[in-house]
Amino acid sequence: MTAEIISVGTEILLGNIVNTNAAFLAEQCASLGLSCYYQTVVGDNEKRLLEAIKTALLRSDIVILSGGLGPTEDDLTKETAAKAAGLPLIPDEHTKVRIQSYFDGIGRVPTENNWKQAMIPEGAIILDNDNGTAPGLILEDRENGKTAILMPGPPAEMHPMFEKDVAPYLNKQQPEGIYSRMVKICGIGESAAETMVADLMDK
Amino acid sequence: MTAEIISVGTEILLGNIVNTNAAFLAEQCASLGLSCYYQTVVGDNEKRLLEAIKTALLRSDIVILSGGLGPTEDDLTKETAAKAAGLPLIPDEHTKVRIQSYFDGIGRVPTENNWKQAMIPEGAIILDNDNGTAPGLILEDRENGKTAILMPGPPAEMHPMFEKDVAPYLNKQQPEGIYSRMVKICGIGESAAETMVADLMDK
Repeated sequence: MTAEIISVGTEILLGNIVNTNAAFLAEQCASLGLSCYYQTVVGDNEKRLLEAIKTALLRSDIVILSGGLGPTEDDLTKETAAKAAGLPLIPDEHTKVRIQSYFDGIGRVPTENNWKQAMIPEGAIILDNDNGTAPGLILEDRENGKTAILMPGPPAEMHPMFEKDVAPYLNKQQPEGIYSRMVKICGIGESAAETMVADLMDK
Repeated sequence: MTAEIISVGTEILLGNIVNTNAAFLAEQCASLGLSCYYQTVVGDNEKRLLEAIKTALLRSDIVILSGGLGPTEDDLTKETAAKAAGLPLIPDEHTKVRIQSYFDGIGRVPTENNWKQAMIPEGAIILDNDNGTAPGLILEDRENGKTAILMPGPPAEMHPMFEKDVAPYLNKQQPEGIYSRMVKICGIGESAAETMVADLMDK
């Protein structure tokens, strides 16, 4: 089963932050047995994001997105993924209650734009966010065997969500793992090392 | 002028290393005034790499690749970029001498596969590598206004090469810079902050 990773955020394209999410997700996918052939970064731009999601869904079984689920106008991932999947956004009461209780917990009042985060693509699996207001989402296209998984960008929200909900979900889809071992070599260079193990590589 | 970044390496796809090269190059591109809309990671696979290079050259003026210039069999970036550009590889005496002198300097003897690194796409601008054996390369397609820039993956080789040769080259192509400023906000959340500056964002 193949997966690919799309990281959404203009701050990554500007080099303001290092894309550690992709490394985290790549490592997790490998250990879950998913072959990951592509990582893509796109900014908060609907046209390019839509194109990236469509391309990824054509060539991979599972597309894992992080970032762009925030409450502000430039956060477009959910809207764009729903568009790619042809799903309308509908209000979700459960998420509304969770957002209100999150704000109660930190002693603040939600602003109007926060309720955007309670709009959910119809039929999506909702992943509760225990560390923020943006729920994760799994959009399954069973007919074509394609899945898009959306998670918030902040690692403190994404990592626990992946471990709690996404990893078990993926494990069900793909029960075998990929095990890799890094062999560290010292004393000779890469080219000499290859020459010495050429017969093993040919096998 | 638009640029995009392709990082080549199965080790990135497996999450074994964090893609700091992309962040470095993105930041440099932004400060050089290049609009960067995409970052891609592909593994050491000719078919997927060729497709990634072709896609990037269609949608961006400048494609900056790092990784896959090593001496071993799995290093395919130069061969694949030359294929995409329709250029034959020809032996380069200057690079041969530099590789020999690099090995003399570290007191080792080159193996046969090292001479692969002295094969250069015809007409390419060669960027001497002061910290390794893989030269950087600039492939210019003047007819279509497209450029591919190839640099080695190890940051200790790539950063100095970028600063010494690539940045001045890019600066000539695109003399204006992009200046961005990060504004840090504390005391309120992102959604409340957007609400307070909505009139500024509409402008």
